[in-house]
Amino acid sequence: MKALGPIPSAYGAIDGVLAVGGKPVTDWVEQAGSTPLFLYSADLVRARVAALRAAMPERLALHYAVKANPFAPLLSLMSGLVDGFDIASGGELQIVRDAGIAPGRVSFAGPGKRDAELEAAILAGVTLNLESEGEAARALVIAERLGVTPRLAIRVNPAFDLKGSGMKMGGGAKPFGVDAERVPALVREVVGSGAEWGGFHIFAGSQALDAEAIAETQAQALELAARLAGESGVPLPHCNLGGGLGIPYFPGDAPVDLDLVGQRLAERFESLPDVLADTAFCIELGRYLVGEAGVYLARIVDRKVSHGEVFLITDGGLHHQLAASGNFGTVVRRNYPSAIATRFDAAVEEEATIVGCLCTPLDKLADKGGFPRADVGDLVAVFCAGAYGASASPASFLGQGPAREMLV
Amino acid sequence: MKALGPIPSAYGAIDGVLAVGGKPVTDWVEQAGSTPLFLYSADLVRARVAALRAAMPERLALHYAVKANPFAPLLSLMSGLVDGFDIASGGELQIVRDAGIAPGRVSFAGPGKRDAELEAAILAGVTLNLESEGEAARALVIAERLGVTPRLAIRVNPAFDLKGSGMKMGGGAKPFGVDAERVPALVREVVGSGAEWGGFHIFAGSQALDAEAIAETQAQALELAARLAGESGVPLPHCNLGGGLGIPYFPGDAPVDLDLVGQRLAERFESLPDVLADTAFCIELGRYLVGEAGVYLARIVDRKVSHGEVFLITDGGLHHQLAASGNFGTVVRRNYPSAIATRFDAAVEEEATIVGCLCTPLDKLADKGGFPRADVGDLVAVFCAGAYGASASPASFLGQGPAREMLV
Repeated sequence: MKALGPIPSAYGAIDGVLAVGGKPVTDWVEQAGSTPLFLYSADLVRARVAALRAAMPERLALHYAVKANPFAPLLSLMSGLVDGFDIASGGELQIVRDAGIAPGRVSFAGPGKRDAELEAAILAGVTLNLESEGEAARALVIAERLGVTPRLAIRVNPAFDLKGSGMKMGGGAKPFGVDAERVPALVREVVGSGAEWGGFHIFAGSQALDAEAIAETQAQALELAARLAGESGVPLPHCNLGGGLGIPYFPGDAPVDLDLVGQRLAERFESLPDVLADTAFCIELGRYLVGEAGVYLARIVDRKVSHGEVFLITDGGLHHQLAASGNFGTVVRRNYPSAIATRFDAAVEEEATIVGCLCTPLDKLADKGGFPRADVGDLVAVFCAGAYGASASPASFLGQGPAREMLV
Repeated sequence: MKALGPIPSAYGAIDGVLAVGGKPVTDWVEQAGSTPLFLYSADLVRARVAALRAAMPERLALHYAVKANPFAPLLSLMSGLVDGFDIASGGELQIVRDAGIAPGRVSFAGPGKRDAELEAAILAGVTLNLESEGEAARALVIAERLGVTPRLAIRVNPAFDLKGSGMKMGGGAKPFGVDAERVPALVREVVGSGAEWGGFHIFAGSQALDAEAIAETQAQALELAARLAGESGVPLPHCNLGGGLGIPYFPGDAPVDLDLVGQRLAERFESLPDVLADTAFCIELGRYLVGEAGVYLARIVDRKVSHGEVFLITDGGLHHQLAASGNFGTVVRRNYPSAIATRFDAAVEEEATIVGCLCTPLDKLADKGGFPRADVGDLVAVFCAGAYGASASPASFLGQGPAREMLV
């Protein structure tokens, strides 16, 4: 039997059925009409934001990285909870505008911004996190042509990375941002052009669980910001310290010690150098805000035994849960947290492999996990499905199409 | 510098620009209106089918696995070239019907068929490749209710796998098919029910390049089919021998020796046991028919240097080319064949990493490859993009949306 990832502690059962948003998931499935279904719990998102606000220094603003989950009702909820939004494409700009989010609260990072995307962002009044000198030049030309003063920030490629992070965004040659040593010259150029100076974006990595490593990286980002602001000779109005806070997906993973991160950051904020005295700071989180608030539900369509092993075959799969299948950013496949949602408080009775309906051996949701005995009609839940699920999976594969999504 | 996969030998240049379908790709991009763009060459698909027909025994029919590429114009082309189609979902049933393909030519395999999909397939007259006893029971109940005689075949989970295949579909406990030893009983049940008996589907693996291994697996499939038909005591009308023929993606890969596979199969067909004397045979290929006929084109949006390394940043990425980015079914990332399409016959001048526009370090199309010097505006080509590209990638990720596709 292989271990499953840890089910977030907030989930419990009603009459033996996994509950989300105060109701058994069977109620939500009935309301949705069918499976597969993503449920996002508004209460859990609110609770996560509240925990962050409580742990972090008041000076630290909170941004939501739309890429983690761009579901419109979730964005509307988030609009009342966070201070800003980070987008990564012209498509996401449209998504946040459709959700009624003011473009002035939005910043746009991403290494391959097309001219049309730069133009739309500048016209809307979005902060551009410039990824290179070339992008800066294009943005200035476009703004000049439009007769608009752009708000320009610079994404810095830091020489350090976030230790233990699932995605390293710094610490060497990267397609993201401008190498730190070239940043002061670019700051002077941007400021000299008459653009509104938007400050720095320093993103060293994401999906880390080690609070000490996160705190250390934030300290390094502050030092780097101070040094680059000093060398630029221009006051730093704003600094996005990146993200980094991960969620437990796999066996043995433990939640980030949020209090430790907050305490260390508060200490740093107490002793900031003069050059950062008036700087506004934010962190930008996606997965950490919404990942554990989401559950993916699929129905068991077949139960079969092959060479003595039990397979539970569902109507869901990697077309909605690419990362859970082990095919997105992981080298060795490990099990996400999962459960038989309709027998949520039943004891483990057997070893079973839960697969999707796709005709490929890649389509595995849980490999040889321990579950209560489940049968056709039961619902399977995959947890940590609130981020990089629906929008980060190949929904059209094998003619399947997207899953339903509900914010409850 | 890291090696790139081998560019299929059929591609050349016109005036220095990669040509597809007799025109420089710049012409097609102009016609399409923008990048990213998938081009599928009808000539290369026709040539591949012709080569297969020439190499394989006449008795072997040829099926197309729609999952490899369900682009409607490609299906219409394929309709005049192959003998049958294999689908893997109710969605793909709709796709082939929309393309005007007669359901009588279609078979449906897939481990998680829902009741609604079984019903649509039975009503349409599609052959169902039954994946389990449970699915057989559901299909019979549905057919009874509909008052329709279903055409039912059985997918066999063989005890052997295809050596060296990228995807193993046999050789142990699998979610696919019925374990061989339980097949004869199920055959008798299906035939006894009054259903039209559709024979066996034996699929041991895919994406293999070793002709000897493919020939050996086909021989094993024939032996297994003979044994199971004999034990069933029912004549075998049809046997799908699976697929298996792969295409060269990576450095060092060489094409399948098609003549060897065809010759070995012809020899086997000469000496078939009596129980298979009247059996119709087919193979079912997806990737092998269309993979090398496709090219993915993206435009360079930025050229930047970070810590001495060159990055070419394109408007494409893993949202269209998940497998090429190394995030789909591969453990160690290796480079697909790629090139600067607008400098196709120029010499290698530098080492560069080609990335997509997504704000994630996973979005890499070519890692430290050797290329002529390219700049903003140049087109990048990723080859082997005809199969498991557009439909097998998370097109909505980061708000990007699908690429254009053209059959030329």
